[in-house]
Amino acid sequence: MPDAPTSASSDLERPAPRIAILGVGLIGGSIGLAARERAGATVTGFDPDREVLAKALTLGAIDHAGDDLSSALSDAQVVFVAAPVGALAQTVKTALGHIGSDCVISDVGSTKRVMAQMNDERFVGGHPLAGAETAGVEYARADLFEGATWYLTPSSATSGVLYERLHRLLVSFGAQPQAIDPGAHDRLMACVSHLPHVLANLLVAQAASVLEGDARLPATGPSFRDATRVAGANSAIWTDIYLSNSDALIAAVDETVRQLAELRTALTHGERNAITAWNERALTDREALLGTGLHGERVHELRVSVPNRPGVIAEIALQLGRGGVNIVDMALSPSADNSQGVVALWLGGEAQASRALELITALSFPVTRP
Amino acid sequence: MPDAPTSASSDLERPAPRIAILGVGLIGGSIGLAARERAGATVTGFDPDREVLAKALTLGAIDHAGDDLSSALSDAQVVFVAAPVGALAQTVKTALGHIGSDCVISDVGSTKRVMAQMNDERFVGGHPLAGAETAGVEYARADLFEGATWYLTPSSATSGVLYERLHRLLVSFGAQPQAIDPGAHDRLMACVSHLPHVLANLLVAQAASVLEGDARLPATGPSFRDATRVAGANSAIWTDIYLSNSDALIAAVDETVRQLAELRTALTHGERNAITAWNERALTDREALLGTGLHGERVHELRVSVPNRPGVIAEIALQLGRGGVNIVDMALSPSADNSQGVVALWLGGEAQASRALELITALSFPVTRP
Repeated sequence: MPDAPTSASSDLERPAPRIAILGVGLIGGSIGLAARERAGATVTGFDPDREVLAKALTLGAIDHAGDDLSSALSDAQVVFVAAPVGALAQTVKTALGHIGSDCVISDVGSTKRVMAQMNDERFVGGHPLAGAETAGVEYARADLFEGATWYLTPSSATSGVLYERLHRLLVSFGAQPQAIDPGAHDRLMACVSHLPHVLANLLVAQAASVLEGDARLPATGPSFRDATRVAGANSAIWTDIYLSNSDALIAAVDETVRQLAELRTALTHGERNAITAWNERALTDREALLGTGLHGERVHELRVSVPNRPGVIAEIALQLGRGGVNIVDMALSPSADNSQGVVALWLGGEAQASRALELITALSFPVTRP
Repeated sequence: MPDAPTSASSDLERPAPRIAILGVGLIGGSIGLAARERAGATVTGFDPDREVLAKALTLGAIDHAGDDLSSALSDAQVVFVAAPVGALAQTVKTALGHIGSDCVISDVGSTKRVMAQMNDERFVGGHPLAGAETAGVEYARADLFEGATWYLTPSSATSGVLYERLHRLLVSFGAQPQAIDPGAHDRLMACVSHLPHVLANLLVAQAASVLEGDARLPATGPSFRDATRVAGANSAIWTDIYLSNSDALIAAVDETVRQLAELRTALTHGERNAITAWNERALTDREALLGTGLHGERVHELRVSVPNRPGVIAEIALQLGRGGVNIVDMALSPSADNSQGVVALWLGGEAQASRALELITALSFPVTRP
């Protein structure tokens, strides 16, 4: 009995799809690995850095290294542009001049309105939420996009057939493609990624100024360290990100100033109830945003007091691992002299949290559910 | 040959010092345990919550439970007031009316100017940087203050003899007492603790508003989660903290608005160099503040890509523990579907960081130094 064709078997699966990747760093290289391993694709890569290009070939991220941009693109059915944010728009424009009509081209940049101006039926903006942008091709992995949201920003000009080809390819990578309006995408990124980076920088600047002449910051609990973890993120990437999304970021900055003015009024007039309500709303909102958003169910926090010696984290993590508890998130806050600390653990769902509480209590570490 | 008295042997060590603690929760209870175990003190406790008081007695945090505030204070040489922030000033004032002239009294509140108005030679404001304020006496530990900075805010009225008695007692707890001007203390706390809490709340509010009608937040890297970890902190404590330090917090808010206005200008005019310089300064400042401040030497970061399954954190932590590497700080960022993630690890000093890189590479996890 012959197999009936299913909706998943497609033109991409019959002849090996031909893919071109412009820029073969961590993201481009991982696209190559995923395309070759998971979609049976033939991948041609190009990178202005010949060393990176050679490395991608050696690592098996690409089948062929193109001599130049145009030869890399000839015959491609799908093109990914994984250049730095500042060079994306120009590279896509150039590439559009070299590909045929039956080819879809996408980028991987973290802001999307700037790309929406292409107005070409072959172009679909994209943004995979995966990968540390600073790492090189040597850290590329075929499973980098497994489970990751991959935003796509089709325009009214985008060809349905070509969009579907790209979408299907991303699904074969294990990614979760999600169409979004370019403006909504950029407002979202301004708010959940770019603004946190800005505020981290501001907090650091202010602390440095308050401590002027005395650089030593006392251990003050984890709030400052957590809030400033991304301060001074790689300028080679972040200056471009800030500038390419500047109007959405300016709107987010303006909204922050508005909220600060409200709080200032409440503080000035000692409005106890308003401050409490504002604070409680933050708790509820964060649970809604992260509790159900990131992990599908409410995340519960445990805090464990531990001596800060080698092996203690292992002891706790091992105990939880043996008990089948998965740690969704964790943060260790050391004391000033690093002799002890508090480990905050986040567990998904009530059952995992209760089980973790039991398991850690059995180790005799003091543990609380704040 | 009789032992010569040393400077460390003192009136507090000869007869057992008599200590009173008003409010025996986590902090008060830990003071009791430390005083009994480490200073051989006799401790009397009082708490308006009789159940908490009984628990403190059962746990050995106090020797005696006072029937009321005045009987708890009679005969005390050192008094700690560990009441909620909103009740601190009144409790200290009342207590000053019940203690003798040879008694030092301190508090443990997180803002200090409000307490500086006591203007009594027996009072020294205090603020130990230790302990999660929401936990109960059942989590009290004799070693809670080991290595912790303990701010003291003596005034010009404070008796030198009494200040020295308090200081010596805190040293016996393992704490590091540090005298600071009450205003400087409150500005510092506004900047490194209260403002990060405010900004966490603001980020959450803004994200909730951008995602209006669609509460699902995509996985966007760790910056948002880290920056909002303290959002909606316990209102029973934090409303009091915000209000008791409102003027220093307002100044920090105003400075934030000023900095945001500067950035806004740079964004509006596309001032690439200014934005890069601002971002680079944040990196340098944070390294100075945390690298040398919290841990005494520069902290190095490693990022490890891992499948997010039970036991994987244990595997890494165990490997580092066996290799003698101590994890100063760590943060796990899961992917959207929780199937994989990146563990950021912070190690103290170049030697530990290099050793950690070797050890983790040996486990075959991809690891980068960003």
